[in-house]
Amino acid sequence: MGSRAEIVLLGDSITEQSFRDGGWGATLANAYSRKADILVRGYGGYNTKWALFLLHHIFPLGSPKPPIATTIFFGANDAALLGRTSERQHVPIEDYKQNLRKIVLHLKEYSPSMQIVLITPPPVSEEGRQRYAESLYGENAMKLPERTNEVTGQYAKACVEIAKEMSVWYINLWPKMQETDGWQDKFLSDGLHLTPEGNTVVYQEVIKVFNEAGLSADKMPLDFPHHSQIDGKNPEIAFQQQGL
Amino acid sequence: MGSRAEIVLLGDSITEQSFRDGGWGATLANAYSRKADILVRGYGGYNTKWALFLLHHIFPLGSPKPPIATTIFFGANDAALLGRTSERQHVPIEDYKQNLRKIVLHLKEYSPSMQIVLITPPPVSEEGRQRYAESLYGENAMKLPERTNEVTGQYAKACVEIAKEMSVWYINLWPKMQETDGWQDKFLSDGLHLTPEGNTVVYQEVIKVFNEAGLSADKMPLDFPHHSQIDGKNPEIAFQQQGL
Repeated sequence: MGSRAEIVLLGDSITEQSFRDGGWGATLANAYSRKADILVRGYGGYNTKWALFLLHHIFPLGSPKPPIATTIFFGANDAALLGRTSERQHVPIEDYKQNLRKIVLHLKEYSPSMQIVLITPPPVSEEGRQRYAESLYGENAMKLPERTNEVTGQYAKACVEIAKEMSVWYINLWPKMQETDGWQDKFLSDGLHLTPEGNTVVYQEVIKVFNEAGLSADKMPLDFPHHSQIDGKNPEIAFQQQGL
Repeated sequence: MGSRAEIVLLGDSITEQSFRDGGWGATLANAYSRKADILVRGYGGYNTKWALFLLHHIFPLGSPKPPIATTIFFGANDAALLGRTSERQHVPIEDYKQNLRKIVLHLKEYSPSMQIVLITPPPVSEEGRQRYAESLYGENAMKLPERTNEVTGQYAKACVEIAKEMSVWYINLWPKMQETDGWQDKFLSDGLHLTPEGNTVVYQEVIKVFNEAGLSADKMPLDFPHHSQIDGKNPEIAFQQQGL
């Protein structure tokens, strides 16, 4: 394929599902149409510990043309509680921080010029999680939450700390979403994953950071002439003017 | 970026808009998540004549890793009528055929193994176009249609002829959509572009052809282990088993 800027979305299920209807990834791809390709690297269920195994395969050192930006969106699974139904995914908070450090360090080595954006996990609605579990398992559903909003908030705080420590961009989604009344059902479909409205929040926050980082889609040139600039009788002129 | 199969969507506005809500491109990207990247190369307003200027830039000969498939979706603009408001975009039907031949020939030279799928223009609702023009321009709207369903049908037929002549896959969208009662408003938002339901038809037809061509997403392996196969205590085992 011919050359085109790339933006990578690395993360867990919230990234993997970002191309469903109203998803933040698809909306980004639409916004960057004719300007940059949006590549999804979302891995449902993954935590930062498991993500380390992928890092060198997704971002092999020595790439001739690295992406212009990468979002890193983990923590929702790391914050699963020990001794509860999702404990397999749990990563202690100090390990989470260390893993994020390793991910950022690798990406900086991979490309010193690539913009890196850490995204904190969204808040958790324990009621929403419980309702979802009961819809699946009825009376056999878990009795105790496998994630709490409070603990996930600690991971969000840790994520912001790492972003500041390592001087990369960040989006503090955890408090941001909770600014809106009724965030539990407005932004979360099952207490953890995003509704279309929740996806819109992520999209808007990502765009805000990309704009600050000088990656505004509005300011990037179209790859080829806009059709309104093409003369019906002499189409070659518009293309020649762009050196095509 | 690490290696990943690619699928390219080349076309006009119906391709460019395919990452809007419910768009066929976004739905494809979701279906091929962790398997192939979907790259949009949609150019609103373009006809096949103008597309020829892009061809060698998007698909430069000698690419080390060509995409596994490309859809080619033009004709809606080529079929605009002479002497009407969109005549600038008009391409005579014999030229349309010749241009499609050139596009297919170039893609075959670019990669003999890449699957090529020609998609015919969708049907046109003249009433829908008229209503849309009046919503924009009121009394100043065009009095005569700039596209007719009949003429667009001739371009669709020509597209199928070229696909058969050149032995590539095709999707005959023009009759397909008209099989459904009320297609005019069910599938078309302004008599020409697709509603979410219209996007679903395109998505389903593309998937059907990809499945026949041996590109079924279900049969392509995940890039990395599914999270359910990862042992919480010994995560490295799942990755080692895949040689990672």
